[in-house]
Amino acid sequence: MPRIAYVNGRYTSAAEACVHIEDRGYQFGDGVYEVCLVVDGAYWDEEGHLARLDRSLKALSIARPMSERALKTVMAALVRKNRLKTALVYIQVTRGVASRNHPFPEKKVAPSLVMTARAFNLEKSEQQAAAGVDVITAPDIRWGRVDIKTINLLPNVLAKQEAQKAGAAEAWLVKGDTVTEGASSNAWIVTRDGELVTHPLSNEILGGITRQAVIECAEALQMRIVERAFTTEEAVNAAEAFLTSATGLVMPVVRIDGKPIGEGKPGPVSRRLRNAYIDRWAVR
Amino acid sequence: MPRIAYVNGRYTSAAEACVHIEDRGYQFGDGVYEVCLVVDGAYWDEEGHLARLDRSLKALSIARPMSERALKTVMAALVRKNRLKTALVYIQVTRGVASRNHPFPEKKVAPSLVMTARAFNLEKSEQQAAAGVDVITAPDIRWGRVDIKTINLLPNVLAKQEAQKAGAAEAWLVKGDTVTEGASSNAWIVTRDGELVTHPLSNEILGGITRQAVIECAEALQMRIVERAFTTEEAVNAAEAFLTSATGLVMPVVRIDGKPIGEGKPGPVSRRLRNAYIDRWAVR
Repeated sequence: MPRIAYVNGRYTSAAEACVHIEDRGYQFGDGVYEVCLVVDGAYWDEEGHLARLDRSLKALSIARPMSERALKTVMAALVRKNRLKTALVYIQVTRGVASRNHPFPEKKVAPSLVMTARAFNLEKSEQQAAAGVDVITAPDIRWGRVDIKTINLLPNVLAKQEAQKAGAAEAWLVKGDTVTEGASSNAWIVTRDGELVTHPLSNEILGGITRQAVIECAEALQMRIVERAFTTEEAVNAAEAFLTSATGLVMPVVRIDGKPIGEGKPGPVSRRLRNAYIDRWAVR
Repeated sequence: MPRIAYVNGRYTSAAEACVHIEDRGYQFGDGVYEVCLVVDGAYWDEEGHLARLDRSLKALSIARPMSERALKTVMAALVRKNRLKTALVYIQVTRGVASRNHPFPEKKVAPSLVMTARAFNLEKSEQQAAAGVDVITAPDIRWGRVDIKTINLLPNVLAKQEAQKAGAAEAWLVKGDTVTEGASSNAWIVTRDGELVTHPLSNEILGGITRQAVIECAEALQMRIVERAFTTEEAVNAAEAFLTSATGLVMPVVRIDGKPIGEGKPGPVSRRLRNAYIDRWAVR
């Protein structure tokens, strides 16, 4: 549990931080969120995360809680107040508090803004990456607008729970016979002829900020990237597989539904991309 | 705003009633709800609503917050404390408070229980029923388990908002070319040869408690009922249309996307069913 949280204008004891029972986030899941990593005081892809937050808010016609500049100020203050150097900052914005009724409130209400920060262990992430992770596959039963980063996360929760039960770190969601993405990450494979493949942007996936950064890293390394859907079978027969997310960075996948990918250990392309992604921030 | 709310064991000022920022209901929409009508102190379909609450909890592996008997006690106390006779009782149960992580918390956490009550105006509902309501159609983009009454309601919110913008009371959700149900009600038509038609139970609709009660009323009136999907075109060409829900009871629909149904006014079958549904409780 983080020690200090930010809730609607106040830095407050996280243990006692609360929101109203008629916050539309609580009654309808009517809100959006972002998770942003700060490493040794440097924010990774902060601009990208805040830009996506803005897109999510616009998509749902939720008002901005404050300017991007003010959000950055709160993020930095929160990390400082919690005496963290390397942390995950969680930002949640909901439509605000109103008497329960499905349509947007008729009177203008202020959006709710909640922020928390907690320690992130980059070393532990490196160890996990060295071993690689397992994923399972699960049916993609989510709604039609998963391109918006909303807090309607129940299908993701259920898929993640199935993964955890199976001893896996992630569930890759399958629609028809193709993998859309993970429950909280984007899914990638490296084909046997060295091509990087990940699902194209559409309303069937969330456009990952890390996904985009990794595409740029891959381009800089002159790797071949193809944005297209791939099947579970292709994934199982791929040379390598990995996932990308703000918390997982580039995380090698070594087994899908128990079947080893390639040699069943992290491959060189995944490793190279992970290093490139980490270096991208180190050099700035 | 209701005056007194029930939150996790306490009757508290509704204005100040709050839940923790890491309640999984707030961060994931990881919870379920029910809305139950009490008229002049008599609970309509209370057993049905509480049984469905239990089914929803089981479907998501959320622990029961308390026995059914205790829930009834709280409901009655809340209505009394708010000095209401005819009211809507809103019951929400979430998986509880835990440090943010998609899978279910590893340690057992107590589920959160929030209850509110607010006045319901049956006379106003009767006036609305006498005039009938408009509905619009909207694409059904919800997830694959809408048979569970969860608080992941964003698609419903967006559809209701579209309805409100169009001056309509409800949005009928269309998948392929058939109407599944309304954003917060079940959808019905009466065909020109007098058959009652509503979507069969499946994971594509929420099994309405009022829907079931109305089926029983229709059976008692020896009406013909067919549980099958119907198309938007059928609906527009029907003799009558109506919706059922705990708050709308049986509500005649007089226009779909602006096109009048039958004579563009509430029909005799809808009226008869509404009366039968209301009488069902009056006589008990």
